[in-house]
Amino acid sequence: MKTVTVNLGERSYPIFIGQNLLGNPELIQPYVQGKQVMIVSNETVSPLYLEKILPAFQGLNIEAVILPDGEQYKTLDVLNQVFDGLLSEKFDRQATLVALGGGVVGDMTGFAAACYQRGVNFIQIPTTLLAQVDSSVGGKTGVNHALGKNMIGAFHQPQCVVIDTDTLNTLPDRELSAGFAEVIKYGLIDDIAFLQWLENNVTLLLKRDADALNYAIARSCQSKARIVSLDEKESGVRALLNLGHTFGHAIETSMGYGTYLHGEAIAIGMVLAARLSATMGWLSNEDVVRVARLIKRFQLPTTIPANMTPADMWQRMQVDKKVRDGKVRLVLMQKLGLSLLTDQYDPALLQKTLQVGQQEIAT
Amino acid sequence: MKTVTVNLGERSYPIFIGQNLLGNPELIQPYVQGKQVMIVSNETVSPLYLEKILPAFQGLNIEAVILPDGEQYKTLDVLNQVFDGLLSEKFDRQATLVALGGGVVGDMTGFAAACYQRGVNFIQIPTTLLAQVDSSVGGKTGVNHALGKNMIGAFHQPQCVVIDTDTLNTLPDRELSAGFAEVIKYGLIDDIAFLQWLENNVTLLLKRDADALNYAIARSCQSKARIVSLDEKESGVRALLNLGHTFGHAIETSMGYGTYLHGEAIAIGMVLAARLSATMGWLSNEDVVRVARLIKRFQLPTTIPANMTPADMWQRMQVDKKVRDGKVRLVLMQKLGLSLLTDQYDPALLQKTLQVGQQEIAT
Repeated sequence: MKTVTVNLGERSYPIFIGQNLLGNPELIQPYVQGKQVMIVSNETVSPLYLEKILPAFQGLNIEAVILPDGEQYKTLDVLNQVFDGLLSEKFDRQATLVALGGGVVGDMTGFAAACYQRGVNFIQIPTTLLAQVDSSVGGKTGVNHALGKNMIGAFHQPQCVVIDTDTLNTLPDRELSAGFAEVIKYGLIDDIAFLQWLENNVTLLLKRDADALNYAIARSCQSKARIVSLDEKESGVRALLNLGHTFGHAIETSMGYGTYLHGEAIAIGMVLAARLSATMGWLSNEDVVRVARLIKRFQLPTTIPANMTPADMWQRMQVDKKVRDGKVRLVLMQKLGLSLLTDQYDPALLQKTLQVGQQEIAT
Repeated sequence: MKTVTVNLGERSYPIFIGQNLLGNPELIQPYVQGKQVMIVSNETVSPLYLEKILPAFQGLNIEAVILPDGEQYKTLDVLNQVFDGLLSEKFDRQATLVALGGGVVGDMTGFAAACYQRGVNFIQIPTTLLAQVDSSVGGKTGVNHALGKNMIGAFHQPQCVVIDTDTLNTLPDRELSAGFAEVIKYGLIDDIAFLQWLENNVTLLLKRDADALNYAIARSCQSKARIVSLDEKESGVRALLNLGHTFGHAIETSMGYGTYLHGEAIAIGMVLAARLSATMGWLSNEDVVRVARLIKRFQLPTTIPANMTPADMWQRMQVDKKVRDGKVRLVLMQKLGLSLLTDQYDPALLQKTLQVGQQEIAT
């Protein structure tokens, strides 16, 4: 087992990464403060893992709320089911919520913990690659709104994150691939060596080789933990973690939540960011091809959906948490492995990028 | 104009108290960070004061969301109307929300500000006595749930609080009285001199004498500011501000939100707290009579509603944010002007208090 620490003073916490961790009370119970544990999961994950984690909470008062599965259910309305469960079981301020599932379950459980009685503890047990390498770490919680993704939420850090890589054995191929979009992201932000390592290990990773997966997850978590420790509330460097996300969120909201997996939309967004960076003269065309090729090798899409217009794309990009004074700020790449947040791009080149965004890049 | 400061380090802010403050841009604009201002008000208050506050935000991009009026609308569902407005107008993270109204508007606007894009600024402009002396100060924000009051929320401090006492001229008598319940509370918690002052000034206050009102409001705000500065997140002394509230919330949820005004329910709750404190031997019967008499003189109820059973009362009291390990902790009075949070009361005496709670106290 590896341990990565997110350093945030009083709010610091460990990320445990390894096999066979799920039902381990010695590992997990030290992070439960009171006697009441509410496990929040979904219809897909709970039949697979709910019973397996129960031993971790033995001796405590355990309840569970099972949500429907999918990004389209990440709403205030569905969130209320968690509050219904907590209140009908008389959970108090010493309660601990446990998120057992992917990014949607983690974001919603964290937000429920942030708001229930104005804040209770929670533990992240992510069961998808995407949640393990990204959304379970860093304390961003929230729900979607019809007009914008993750627009309602809170910064609320978990007590610990338990990544049992055995859970990836039951993950559908499509979701595994989606997770790799966020893994690739860490390479593009500031870790060219990791990008190269990924290029050399695509086959092993897609075969779910345990050692390769463990390495990719741990390195991603180290990256994320370092950036979050520097900038918890995203006043600066943390915004780089949104590489591809302004484009991607526009695709997710336009197509309807759940049509494209989050990682798939982000994959397309990273290609668009690379293309715009190239028109700005920062990346070479070879760099763009290299990004697109790696993304394709992970079975991920690289082009804007055929039924989205550039105008729709642009309209939706303007509802983004990084907008300031009406300007859409974007994470672009100065070179591969060096990203930056900027509004100093040419709007005409952005429009051009959106216009060619449905065309395949020959790789 | 008086200024009271809430000392919370980086999150410190002023409370301005005086007449004719509403439309003053010199006073208010320094607390607006960006260019976007969303005023949140309700159907009752907006016709009276919305136009009057507009000059305070001249030169900025002003929008407004008008909510239905009443505690029964303090829900996640209605909160979503604020998010709809913010997103459809493309408000960004530099936006400032302005709460113009009573406690419900203030609590909901503050919670919307806490959650929108994971946190934006807000300003409190309370227009009811209750909001001016209590709910607008201290950063408690949130909404109700069918199973419990204020169960979903956040601690989120405003940039400033603007109390224009002229707004009380349009406040219905019943709501003015309800506000005095929270004013009396400060006397009972730790300020016996203020309790005496209130006893001597009931007539002036109910006549809305400007000087008397200003004094009562400022003294209440000083009390609240001092307690909040000591204990922002309610790990200790701040709980004393909940005197009467565990009883009162039970009445509010049982009767249906809005049937009893919050202050009316709290008035009954304070009488019950006094009665239980007397059975514990802490207060004399004369003390209880003194509390009930003052509350009655302010035109407030003192007895449990006729159609509530002690069992219903007790059932609902167990859903309270002060419950710990299944024990309902209560704010009681060791003597008048000295309250404490305790679970060291005799449960049998509590049940007895609930059983006699529908009987008038002869004053």
